[in-house]
Amino acid sequence: MNRYFLGIDIGGTNAEFAYVSTDGTIIASGRVPVKDCPSPVLLMNQIRVAAAELAASQGFDSVPFGVGVGAPAARQDTGCIEGSTDLPWESPIPMAAIAAKEFGVPAVLTNDANAAALGEMMFGAAKGLNNFIMLTLGTGVGSAIVADGQLITGAHGQAGELGHFTLGADFTRPCSCGRAGCLQTYASASGVTRTALGLLEISDAESVLREIPADEITAKYIYDAATHGDELALHTWRLTGEVLGKAMANFASFSDPEAYIFFGGVAQALPFMQNAMKDEMEKNILFLYSDKIQILPSRLSGAEAALLGAAAAVMKTEGLMPK
Amino acid sequence: MNRYFLGIDIGGTNAEFAYVSTDGTIIASGRVPVKDCPSPVLLMNQIRVAAAELAASQGFDSVPFGVGVGAPAARQDTGCIEGSTDLPWESPIPMAAIAAKEFGVPAVLTNDANAAALGEMMFGAAKGLNNFIMLTLGTGVGSAIVADGQLITGAHGQAGELGHFTLGADFTRPCSCGRAGCLQTYASASGVTRTALGLLEISDAESVLREIPADEITAKYIYDAATHGDELALHTWRLTGEVLGKAMANFASFSDPEAYIFFGGVAQALPFMQNAMKDEMEKNILFLYSDKIQILPSRLSGAEAALLGAAAAVMKTEGLMPK
Repeated sequence: MNRYFLGIDIGGTNAEFAYVSTDGTIIASGRVPVKDCPSPVLLMNQIRVAAAELAASQGFDSVPFGVGVGAPAARQDTGCIEGSTDLPWESPIPMAAIAAKEFGVPAVLTNDANAAALGEMMFGAAKGLNNFIMLTLGTGVGSAIVADGQLITGAHGQAGELGHFTLGADFTRPCSCGRAGCLQTYASASGVTRTALGLLEISDAESVLREIPADEITAKYIYDAATHGDELALHTWRLTGEVLGKAMANFASFSDPEAYIFFGGVAQALPFMQNAMKDEMEKNILFLYSDKIQILPSRLSGAEAALLGAAAAVMKTEGLMPK
Repeated sequence: MNRYFLGIDIGGTNAEFAYVSTDGTIIASGRVPVKDCPSPVLLMNQIRVAAAELAASQGFDSVPFGVGVGAPAARQDTGCIEGSTDLPWESPIPMAAIAAKEFGVPAVLTNDANAAALGEMMFGAAKGLNNFIMLTLGTGVGSAIVADGQLITGAHGQAGELGHFTLGADFTRPCSCGRAGCLQTYASASGVTRTALGLLEISDAESVLREIPADEITAKYIYDAATHGDELALHTWRLTGEVLGKAMANFASFSDPEAYIFFGGVAQALPFMQNAMKDEMEKNILFLYSDKIQILPSRLSGAEAALLGAAAAVMKTEGLMPK
């Protein structure tokens, strides 16, 4: 009669859930719709019922040891979702309390970036690391900072906004936050696309990207082009790596990390960025940190990371660490 | 029969020591010479003997509950002093172990910046704060970062080197670390002096600083001139505040602090820097952190801070927090 932890990943369309063992194996998983659900309490009830049915159908005990919930705009310190534009309910949503009450076991709420970092720490590339910075490259650039074995949350649960770290006078791209020169204007999917469009404009180099209308070029196309050796696409990734490397040199002065871990769709291009990133980081870093920091890709698959991370959040709170 | 904690501050010339109560009162203090002492073991023995005599003369129990040692180039994680150029003994010096053996009580080693932060947290301006960044402005710029109630130490005990945070393309002053544009080339005593010398050169403004030979101008003179309303000196401090404010805006994205606390000789000029610093920080900060961060002067006197901080380091490790 095994009992597992339940990881839940709440998005705007569906809530995914999975029973996760302490070694990071997903035992069984399912989903319930979020979009038309009238309240978060009802959603959690539907998740519990669906999870219980799933467990019964597979012959294991349906009561988890703990429930970890990942959601956008979630604050782990308060256990509330605050100001999410993706969910159909009013903020603040006390989701940790709702889950704890519904399941009758300890529950933890965490956000996407933090869940990814905890998942990585318990089951992935950061296993055994106590000091690392996770950079999530996707639509935006997210980050999570683990120092001395603890995820830094900060005074208002908003530590680790390194996507909005500003890079200085040479970096002038306007950002959605209203400022200019934020890291994510260079290292997010749209940032990478802006870099490629710039190169297409200032050079006459041949590129398969010229065969696509400019407003249809995406980071995915640039990645695909790079895998086929397209020089302009490769140049785009090198420039992206350089900008990241320069920022990573400065981040080191903060928390003295042993590794940077890259997660998210855009991070699939890490092999094309890594050399330039490493060179630029080492060129700009304080001597104390020279040659001490690894650059690692995530080891969690994108689809499973959110669920494993949510489960890891409650396992960590409950004092469980994997072997 | 009260028992107290012993704070020790080891410098190149002397080792100061003080019995400290859990409310941060220095009960009694003394010193022994370091310079010609043949070994760190002998030094610690001399400290214990001197401390015992002091306690006997004042009629209290000489055995402290714990010993906190502050020293340059000290690593709290290993308990060793490594590569100090100020002390007459070979590195690594296992000073925490030496103190624990000599006194027969728990002992903790910490460095200057961390000791100051812990002292501030237990007895000073950071009392009750769990998230703050301490910036020590002096010969260099040191820092200590407390996040979620814990001092960040990092993978190699070298977290919090914010004096060597580089400010971007507009900031080109060479730094002693071999790079350029580090915060401390603007905000240390010599950085402030460079700023004043630059202003003296590019302007014809009257200033009492023109009465001093350029190579004799110090941050102290510039502070004194500012207290007398000297406009060029005031301008120097405003510019220093602006550079700090810009950097502080970026630091916020890291650990979401509730306060910056300023310590050290140059920080006495905080009243002249504070408005410009606050304006520039708020102008450059991510909206998430707007109007949430206090700027505070240290509340520990310079002479006592090292001893109180060293004592605080062992009190914190022993689970003691002041009322």
